Amino acid sequence: MPLPEGEKSSPMAAVLSFCGAWAGPDMDRVISHLGDDIVYHNMPMEELSGLAAVERYLRAAGPFEHCAWEVRAVAANGEHVLTERIDRMTVRGRTVTLPVMGTFRVRGGLIREWRDYFDLASYLAQLA
Amino acid sequence: MPLPEGEKSSPMAAVLSFCGAWAGPDMDRVISHLGDDIVYHNMPMEELSGLAAVERYLRAAGPFEHCAWEVRAVAANGEHVLTERIDRMTVRGRTVTLPVMGTFRVRGGLIREWRDYFDLASYLAQLA
Repeated sequence: MPLPEGEKSSPMAAVLSFCGAWAGPDMDRVISHLGDDIVYHNMPMEELSGLAAVERYLRAAGPFEHCAWEVRAVAANGEHVLTERIDRMTVRGRTVTLPVMGTFRVRGGLIREWRDYFDLASYLAQLA
Repeated sequence: MPLPEGEKSSPMAAVLSFCGAWAGPDMDRVISHLGDDIVYHNMPMEELSGLAAVERYLRAAGPFEHCAWEVRAVAANGEHVLTERIDRMTVRGRTVTLPVMGTFRVRGGLIREWRDYFDLASYLAQLA
């Protein structure tokens, strides 16, 4: 989705580009959207702080043979971008469809905060 | 929080007023924000359609001796209003603190769609 020139570096554009990078997934592109000071919290799990810890976690997560995030709704308010998504991922041959909402905080075009809200049992049940 | 005149009937204002009505909770005021065609989905559970079914569920839910919703972030995009909240509620003497994100769709000042995303196990564990 091409964005108008003025929107290219907006917080919403950065988050939509991040969501798009999960297609594949292209993990180098995913990581390139995150700031050094990133705080990432999958709400049912432990919070992770700093790019090194978050990158280690994301590269090990799944591992995902395939991913695609569908953005159902997105809205921005200053640095805050809120998303409603359907995250689809293939893990060890199993396809998981997970309804998720995520909050992002963007500064200087990079994601500094990321919190995802979802039902962990719904995820695990699809892997069993 | 008083809103400027032009904002009084905005989708965001309707949702913030709805979140405020949960203080108490004032269930009559909560219900008054919902349209006849409301579709309400607590994502880990079954979807409910229509005001009668949603009102029946909400009045029986908990029951909550006390509630307060803290809005951490809110953003609107047309009819869509996305919220990040900490919902606090007291159920049978137990206080539950639940991180939630919710999507609302507002038309004519009334909420027509409401989807809440949270980890059901995190809620149930605090009641046990």
